[in-house]
Amino acid sequence: MDTALTALAITCTLKPSPAESSSDLMATQILDALKEHGVTGDLVRAVDLAIAPGVETDMGDGDEWPTLREKVLAADILVFVTPTWMGQHSSVAQRVLERLDAELSETDDQGRPILFDKVAIAGIVGNEDGAHHIAAILFQSLNDVGYTVAAQSSVYWNGEAMAGGDYKDLDETPEPVQKTIDTSARNAAHLARALKISAFPAA
Amino acid sequence: MDTALTALAITCTLKPSPAESSSDLMATQILDALKEHGVTGDLVRAVDLAIAPGVETDMGDGDEWPTLREKVLAADILVFVTPTWMGQHSSVAQRVLERLDAELSETDDQGRPILFDKVAIAGIVGNEDGAHHIAAILFQSLNDVGYTVAAQSSVYWNGEAMAGGDYKDLDETPEPVQKTIDTSARNAAHLARALKISAFPAA
Amino acid sequence: MDTALTALAITCTLKPSPAESSSDLMATQILDALKEHGVTGDLVRAVDLAIAPGVETDMGDGDEWPTLREKVLAADILVFVTPTWMGQHSSVAQRVLERLDAELSETDDQGRPILFDKVAIAGIVGNEDGAHHIAAILFQSLNDVGYTVAAQSSVYWNGEAMAGGDYKDLDETPEPVQKTIDTSARNAAHLARALKISAFPAA
Amino acid sequence: MDTALTALAITCTLKPSPAESSSDLMATQILDALKEHGVTGDLVRAVDLAIAPGVETDMGDGDEWPTLREKVLAADILVFVTPTWMGQHSSVAQRVLERLDAELSETDDQGRPILFDKVAIAGIVGNEDGAHHIAAILFQSLNDVGYTVAAQSSVYWNGEAMAGGDYKDLDETPEPVQKTIDTSARNAAHLARALKISAFPAA
Repeated sequence: MDTALTALAITCTLKPSPAESSSDLMATQILDALKEHGVTGDLVRAVDLAIAPGVETDMGDGDEWPTLREKVLAADILVFVTPTWMGQHSSVAQRVLERLDAELSETDDQGRPILFDKVAIAGIVGNEDGAHHIAAILFQSLNDVGYTVAAQSSVYWNGEAMAGGDYKDLDETPEPVQKTIDTSARNAAHLARALKISAFPAA
Repeated sequence: MDTALTALAITCTLKPSPAESSSDLMATQILDALKEHGVTGDLVRAVDLAIAPGVETDMGDGDEWPTLREKVLAADILVFVTPTWMGQHSSVAQRVLERLDAELSETDDQGRPILFDKVAIAGIVGNEDGAHHIAAILFQSLNDVGYTVAAQSSVYWNGEAMAGGDYKDLDETPEPVQKTIDTSARNAAHLARALKISAFPAA
Repeated sequence: MDTALTALAITCTLKPSPAESSSDLMATQILDALKEHGVTGDLVRAVDLAIAPGVETDMGDGDEWPTLREKVLAADILVFVTPTWMGQHSSVAQRVLERLDAELSETDDQGRPILFDKVAIAGIVGNEDGAHHIAAILFQSLNDVGYTVAAQSSVYWNGEAMAGGDYKDLDETPEPVQKTIDTSARNAAHLARALKISAFPAA
Repeated sequence: MDTALTALAITCTLKPSPAESSSDLMATQILDALKEHGVTGDLVRAVDLAIAPGVETDMGDGDEWPTLREKVLAADILVFVTPTWMGQHSSVAQRVLERLDAELSETDDQGRPILFDKVAIAGIVGNEDGAHHIAAILFQSLNDVGYTVAAQSSVYWNGEAMAGGDYKDLDETPEPVQKTIDTSARNAAHLARALKISAFPAA
C-alpha cells in the first residue's frame, strides 16, 4: 500500500448533471472501496462534456474529449460505469470507447501501447437485464486498447425481468453487490500496484 | 384461423429428463398460448438426445439429430428455449444452432432456403441476467438460416442480479411475462399463417 | 406489387456529411434493391442531426429526433445501417436505438405497439469483424419495439481480421454481399406487403 | 524468468482427433510463444473427452471433466481457443465454460476463489466474423470465475465476410496475428509471474 495510485471513474448515464444517476452512485461506491486500498479517485460524467463523434484523439472544433483523455492517461485505474438501454451499454459509453480506440496507435517511449499497466473495472446498472453482456463488451474493448482486467472485476445490478426499478432507489446496497465492489477494488488496486512496480515488458 | 399450423419447441436445459426444468415450463406455456391460435405443438428436450458435434445434417454413428431435424422441417413455428449459463445460451442450445447451420445449404424445389416461411420464438430463463443478449443471438442465428421473427417474439425471465431464483419456482407467472407469451404466440401464429398463404418468393 | 410501400434508411456513420461513408453506400444499395420491389426510399444520416441523449420521444431544447421520428413512423420498412467500432454498433446507432426505446409505450388506436407491421433490415459494415454480433443486437432491439424481421435480413461486409479495408473502397460489391442485399430486400418487401394487407391482431 | 510457469490450452473444435483443426494450430502457436517466456504447455482437445452437461465439478457416470479440471487447476495460464459457428463460440467451448462455472463456489484455504492468480488468453478462429464478440464472452466468463486478463490478450483470425477460408489453410500466419500471439504470450507470462510472486489478497 505504499505506492500511491489514482483512479478515474467515467460514468455514462444519458442524463446530464445534476440529475441523480445510478451509474454515478455505483461509481462512487467503487471509488470509495478503492480509497481503502490507497487509491485517490475522481469522477467524470461523460454526458456533461461535448465529446465529438470520431476515432481520433482530438476531433477539433469544440471537442471536449482531449481534457477527459488527459485524465484517462493520468489514472492508474479506470472505473467505467454504464447504464443499460435496449440491453446495451449507453450511446455515451460507446462514444467514450470509440474515442479510446485512437489509443491503439499511441505508444510510449519504449514502443508499448500507451495504456499498458493500467487496470479497468466495469460497472453496469440496469432495470432488468444486460450486465454480463455489457461487462463482456467493456472488458474486450478496454483490453484491446491496453487495459488489464483483474480477477472478478465486474460490478453490476439489475432487478427482475420486466419489473423495473433503479439501483439508486434501492433501500440499501445488496450484500452480494457490495461484495463484488469490495473484491473488484481490492483486486484492481493490487494489480495496478504490481504493474506499477513491474511494468509489462516491451517487445 | 382456418389454416392448421404446427409448432415444435426445442428446450435446451442441461438436465436430462425427468428432472424439472424452467425451460420446459416456459416452452409449455408458449405452446399453450399457441394452441389458442390454432397451433398444434410438440416439445423435445434436446439433451435427452445424443446430438453429435458437427455442422452436417447427419453426422452418422448414432447421431440422433436427424430425427429431431425431421420435426424441425415439419413445424411451421419453432419455439427455441434456453437456460442462461455464464450469461450465455447453453451448450445444448449452441449444439442445436450448429446443426441448424447445415440448413444454409439446403434448398427447396424453387431454390429457396429450406427453412423459409417458418417463424421462430425465442424463450430464455435465467437466475439473474442475460436474456436480451441471448434473444439477440437466437434471432440472428435463426434468421440467418431462414426463420422469420414476428414483432416482439422474445419471452424471458430472470430474477434480480446475484439473487438467484428459478422460473419454475415462482409462485405464479409474472403478469408482464405472461403478456409477452401471449403477444409472441399471437404474432407468430399470425405471421406463420400469412407466410403459409403467401410464401417468400424465389429469387 | 400493387401495394405501394416506403422505406427509411438510417445510417449511423460517425462522419457528418458530406464525408463519404460505407454505411451510406450499403444503405443506398439496399434502397436500390427495394425499389425493384415497389418500395420508395429515403436516407437520413443520423449524425447530421442533433439527436439528444435520452429515452423520451422528444427531449426538447433543440432535439432533432422528433423530425426523424416522424419519418420512422411513416415508413413501412426500416433499413438500419451501422459501422463497426470496437466490434460494436456505433454510438450514433445506439443513440437511435435509445430514442426508439420510447416507442415501447406508444400504442395505436387498437392498443397495439405503434411500430407493429413494420419490417426491419440490418446492414453492417466494418474493417474486420463484428457483423453477426451487431446484427443480433439490431434484430433484438428493433424486434423488441415492434419490428418484424423477414428471413435472412442482415447484410454485412468486413475484411480479413486486422487487415483493414473499407466497404466503400472495394472495386465492386462482392457477389455474396449483393445476393444478401437482393434477398433481404425481396423478403422485406414481401413481408411488409403481407402485413399491410393483414396486420398483427390486437390483444 | 526464473519462476517456472505452466500453461494449459483447451481447444474447442467440433472435430474429434485426429482431424486437423485451426483451433489446435492457433493454440499451438500461442503455447510456442509462451515457451519463449519460460512457460511449459500442454494442449487438450475438449471434444475428445466425454464432458457431461451440467454445472457441478463432477457429474459422475463417465464424466471426463474431472481429469481436465485437474489440469485447469494445475496450470498458471489458460489458453482457451474456440472456433466460430453461427457467429458464436462452439458448443464444446460453452460446455467447458459451464463446467468452470462450478469453480465460483470453490475456495482455497484463505477463502479466495480457487482460480485467483491464474491468467487467461482467448483465441478465436473463424471463416468470416465473430472474434470480438467471442473474445468478449470468454473474457467475461473466465474473469467471473477468477481469471485475470493481461493487456491485449485476444488472438484471432477470420477471413473476409462470406468468403470462407480456414486459418489452418493459410500459407503463413499473417504478421498482425503473429504480433498479437507474441504480445498476448509476453503479457500473460509477465502477469502470471507477478501474481505468483504477489497473489491477490484475501478479503
